[in-house]
Amino acid sequence: MATTNLETLTAAFSDIETITDPNQVAKLSQDYHTFSPVLVPKLAGKVGDIVVRPANEEEVIKVASICAELRIPVTVRGAGTGNYGQCVPMHGGVILDMTKMQEILWINPGVARVQAGVKLTALDKQAKGIGWEMRMAPSTYRTATIGGFVAGGSGGIGSIQYGLLGDRGNLLALRVVTLEEEPRVIELRGDDVQKVNHAWGINGIITEVEIPLGTAYPWAEVIVTFNDFMTAAKFGQALGNADGMIKKLISIFASPIPEYFSALHQYIPDATHAALLMIAEPSLELLPGLVQQYNGQITYQKPAQEAGKGLNLAEFTWNHTTLHARSVDTSITYLQSIFPADKGLELVEELYHYFGDEVMMHLEFIRVKGRVIPAALQLVRYTTEARLNEIIHYHEAKGVFIANPHTYIIEDGGRKVIDPEQLKFKEMVDPYGLMNPGKSKVLSAE
Amino acid sequence: MATTNLETLTAAFSDIETITDPNQVAKLSQDYHTFSPVLVPKLAGKVGDIVVRPANEEEVIKVASICAELRIPVTVRGAGTGNYGQCVPMHGGVILDMTKMQEILWINPGVARVQAGVKLTALDKQAKGIGWEMRMAPSTYRTATIGGFVAGGSGGIGSIQYGLLGDRGNLLALRVVTLEEEPRVIELRGDDVQKVNHAWGINGIITEVEIPLGTAYPWAEVIVTFNDFMTAAKFGQALGNADGMIKKLISIFASPIPEYFSALHQYIPDATHAALLMIAEPSLELLPGLVQQYNGQITYQKPAQEAGKGLNLAEFTWNHTTLHARSVDTSITYLQSIFPADKGLELVEELYHYFGDEVMMHLEFIRVKGRVIPAALQLVRYTTEARLNEIIHYHEAKGVFIANPHTYIIEDGGRKVIDPEQLKFKEMVDPYGLMNPGKSKVLSAE
Repeated sequence: MATTNLETLTAAFSDIETITDPNQVAKLSQDYHTFSPVLVPKLAGKVGDIVVRPANEEEVIKVASICAELRIPVTVRGAGTGNYGQCVPMHGGVILDMTKMQEILWINPGVARVQAGVKLTALDKQAKGIGWEMRMAPSTYRTATIGGFVAGGSGGIGSIQYGLLGDRGNLLALRVVTLEEEPRVIELRGDDVQKVNHAWGINGIITEVEIPLGTAYPWAEVIVTFNDFMTAAKFGQALGNADGMIKKLISIFASPIPEYFSALHQYIPDATHAALLMIAEPSLELLPGLVQQYNGQITYQKPAQEAGKGLNLAEFTWNHTTLHARSVDTSITYLQSIFPADKGLELVEELYHYFGDEVMMHLEFIRVKGRVIPAALQLVRYTTEARLNEIIHYHEAKGVFIANPHTYIIEDGGRKVIDPEQLKFKEMVDPYGLMNPGKSKVLSAE
Repeated sequence: MATTNLETLTAAFSDIETITDPNQVAKLSQDYHTFSPVLVPKLAGKVGDIVVRPANEEEVIKVASICAELRIPVTVRGAGTGNYGQCVPMHGGVILDMTKMQEILWINPGVARVQAGVKLTALDKQAKGIGWEMRMAPSTYRTATIGGFVAGGSGGIGSIQYGLLGDRGNLLALRVVTLEEEPRVIELRGDDVQKVNHAWGINGIITEVEIPLGTAYPWAEVIVTFNDFMTAAKFGQALGNADGMIKKLISIFASPIPEYFSALHQYIPDATHAALLMIAEPSLELLPGLVQQYNGQITYQKPAQEAGKGLNLAEFTWNHTTLHARSVDTSITYLQSIFPADKGLELVEELYHYFGDEVMMHLEFIRVKGRVIPAALQLVRYTTEARLNEIIHYHEAKGVFIANPHTYIIEDGGRKVIDPEQLKFKEMVDPYGLMNPGKSKVLSAE
């Protein structure tokens, strides 16, 4: 990797907005890998040399060309809400901040096309005007960009309806700029989007995203409490399986997790287990019957017309659960799991009892290949890295899939291997290996 | 059962529209049980004494009161598109034709309330104006009424998205008039609708239905052909499981069934197996990739904007498949099956090979309790009732659920027993057992 001094870089990007203030550059070299006590020391002190903020694709092409010519590493970022250190540059260079590219190009019924830096909230706000919204969103919804979600996300609130972002049909097209002296602009459509989807931002610079939308139902928010955790889990599964009831979120929390949600304290008595739900209002009338069947108590209900006011239950779910817990107790970290479809809730029950208070159960029901299954972002009372790995291996040995959030090495995380199609595409769009280098075993070995 | 002569009846209903012409009364005493060679002789000659056509709930109440007082049997009907002889009166009496009650009371985003005689097409036409449509509909969609669908239907085109009509959330409220001297009007909401849903029209006279709507996606229609039946079936399952692809219909036909569809002849080569699909246009671009994976050929595609013009693929699916086959060969009859969720397509394959040409495989993928599974309306080359029963029993012994369409006895059909809640409600709303008597073992025994 060639080293280039800051003056050369500043001069090269003279007509594009840049940030060189060291504090700001350091801040924009970070993401939320701080959730992991294992990642923090490994990524400490890793910062970029300069932040470049292109305003349009033309400027992206200019940056790509200069970086290719000078062999400067490029770490692309949106809002930096990821948790795997994806936005931390291992070898300095340019931090390519895409958040200025905020144009919503068009929204038709069911489909939108946006620039990569568009915030999820911005797209939603405009789409809702014609009855649509994003099919799914992470709990970082308020700040995250669509480009960042595509590069580093996988699903979230809405996945109980539409599955994961990587599922065929949840992403329609991507436009990427290559890291070459003469950058090309490539439009990927149909199944080809998978060459870049969830590729950690190393397979070209995403400039535009075409994404299908979901129906913007009026979503009511509901809290249900239970005296028994497994009854709560079974309720979640039953609601997930209820094909006639439209829902966007089924989050189940074992006690004492809800005690970390101070704003919800009055609705969730201590020592109870809770379900946080988003239900379409036409289905809401049917909820009490189901709740009663599982001996639950509805303790809070906010009609859709008050969405945006007061509490926003989604903010307590998915990885924001971890955020809330860590704001009370920084020794807490987490896992990311998908339970196997063919075991029902058996393994959830077994592991809930086996680890007790050390691994606190947090389920997020989602659709995977046509089935409703529990994903989990368990909260872990961290002691040592060795013990954390032991916990992870115990889960894996039982058949639970773990997308390990305690590594920045792509192959050690969710997908285990880099898709050969993605590798082939990588070679074509980033021939000098400049995009976020140091994050992959197979690429570092070359 | 008291007998009452026609003059008394005509006088009693003097201010309500009636039909007494024997040909018309006979016609309105029929339904599509003629699909079953077993039912035809059993229901031959069963006709009502008079057809009464109330224009509003007030008139329904008047008819109910008179029938209760005179102890006259009442057989309620919509368009008479059912297949179990539900509309055939075993003991004469009044045929209560609800098709004049066609008022759409209101349509809000996601929910509609209509009178029982409203046609499915009429509701859809108006709902589509604001972006909604019925969640599911039978293949008799063009003529069927909503009250009839609720009383005798169970699902259909759309069930791949929303499950069956009986699933919690797919029906919001029913208004029924009781068969008493002083009829009551009862509104059932929430889970209570199940007291009347799919109760064969014997649990009170349904006058109004409140029903949730689904998103009116622009539906493209597609035919895909395959050289191998099981590959076609696997394609259907994969498309069903593709959570990111929005679809309304996945029908799979083993050869030679498509040869009965003369209008589709040019799109389905002889000896090939076919999938008839309705796919939301935002998902359409992803279809070729999936089709290719299963070595299929897309031979026909109609964009949503041409919906209503030319071919309507849905008209060849569900029980219309049987209709088309019987229009060519009247010796054909059918089964109605649901394959067990935990066996995948194993049993489909086994039974496909076991029966060969005698039981031609016709799959309709639907959601059942959160899973995508194959329902089937197999076409049977009928020889004798004994052989038909043998075929049914063979399926049942393998674990296939059969909703037997060759019986008019409720307990021998789809649900095997009458729900105790329905029985309790029945006693309350029809104390004299006047509603469509003779169709239930348990009720006849009383």
